[in-house]
Amino acid sequence: MPSKVGAKPSIAVVLSGCGHRDGSEIHEATLTLLAIHRHGADYQCYAPDRGQLAVISHLTSENMAERRNVLVEAARIARGQIKPLAAFNALAHDALIFPGGVGAAMNLCDYAEKGGDCQPLPEVAQAIAAMRTAGKPIGALCIAPVVLAAAIGGVTLTIGNDDKVAADLRAMGAHHEKTGPDGVVIDKKFRVVTTPCYMFDSIRLDTLAASIDRLVAAVLELAKESVL
Amino acid sequence: MPSKVGAKPSIAVVLSGCGHRDGSEIHEATLTLLAIHRHGADYQCYAPDRGQLAVISHLTSENMAERRNVLVEAARIARGQIKPLAAFNALAHDALIFPGGVGAAMNLCDYAEKGGDCQPLPEVAQAIAAMRTAGKPIGALCIAPVVLAAAIGGVTLTIGNDDKVAADLRAMGAHHEKTGPDGVVIDKKFRVVTTPCYMFDSIRLDTLAASIDRLVAAVLELAKESVL
Repeated sequence: MPSKVGAKPSIAVVLSGCGHRDGSEIHEATLTLLAIHRHGADYQCYAPDRGQLAVISHLTSENMAERRNVLVEAARIARGQIKPLAAFNALAHDALIFPGGVGAAMNLCDYAEKGGDCQPLPEVAQAIAAMRTAGKPIGALCIAPVVLAAAIGGVTLTIGNDDKVAADLRAMGAHHEKTGPDGVVIDKKFRVVTTPCYMFDSIRLDTLAASIDRLVAAVLELAKESVL
Repeated sequence: MPSKVGAKPSIAVVLSGCGHRDGSEIHEATLTLLAIHRHGADYQCYAPDRGQLAVISHLTSENMAERRNVLVEAARIARGQIKPLAAFNALAHDALIFPGGVGAAMNLCDYAEKGGDCQPLPEVAQAIAAMRTAGKPIGALCIAPVVLAAAIGGVTLTIGNDDKVAADLRAMGAHHEKTGPDGVVIDKKFRVVTTPCYMFDSIRLDTLAASIDRLVAAVLELAKESVL
């Protein structure tokens, strides 16, 4: 690490739309990008180029009779600097991070529909498998650990203290560690780092920023040991 | 300050949509909320309840044949905790902050269409006037100072080093101070604080966060001297 000698470490950030009810949680995504820059690394955003499972009003929580594309909406968070996830190349990056938001459970896998029988999207599964082959670390925030549980058998992770989701994670073969809002769980064997963020709805942004900063620091530390 | 004895200071944050090309700049808005929490204050988001001037793809920069509502989209940044700007009450808040993004120039005033002849939306003008009457401070980021220039004659502010926008600000009767990406300009007479943020397109998020943190600190300091 980094991927090129002399270059900054590069972290790929996989978004799932723009807004926590049907896409990426905006604060979590932004604070991930902030932490990456704070630690002297660079980021490249990705998102699946496909329709959102739903479009939900963040004012009323009701479904809207609209269709939106995951990549096009995620570009709002990425200021247009985003690539389709199908173009992901593990050799170009030192780590991979999934911010949360219900979009992770709707648009990156089918957890929102199938719970513990969840499967990741093919391009999500491919990106995770390629990073694992390269021995590179993966981070996930909030509800996004369900994506990793679906893709990596036996991984240890946290989604905070939600018993229902924890049971689903166990049904997928993962080990769940209960944590508080500032908890960061590191699975050194699988090189996976998770933190619950807005799984605690009343978390304040300073606590959120600190937890995400610790996750990014842990991911970058693990990246130093990567094999490719 | 704060508005109620023993309560945390309350800062109203006026959003203009969700995404820098047609609404609020997402990183600037999120980092404003972060800085408010970091300084031990609370926030309440507001946005005009009206149609966006445009809906622009953040992937291609092209206009999309869609209609979206400013308040409904801004709710994505505010996680649903947002009020229509027409309900703004200056007595409930200690300060007012406008994050940037082209939405500030499209949906809070008509700068995007009229340049130096720009006028603020009626509810924007009312909120600014009510804060001025109460002697309470106002902050603005990025392009959002155009809203203040249109509403407050003779105010001193910065939008960085963009000569065209600076000339428009002067045409509106404002004084412009040229700054770099980390510049924060404080007009003590009018109690207005501004910083250029993504007017410098290549600013990194750590610099952005630090500038916004300084702006929020300055706004809270000015709020201690407010009269109501």
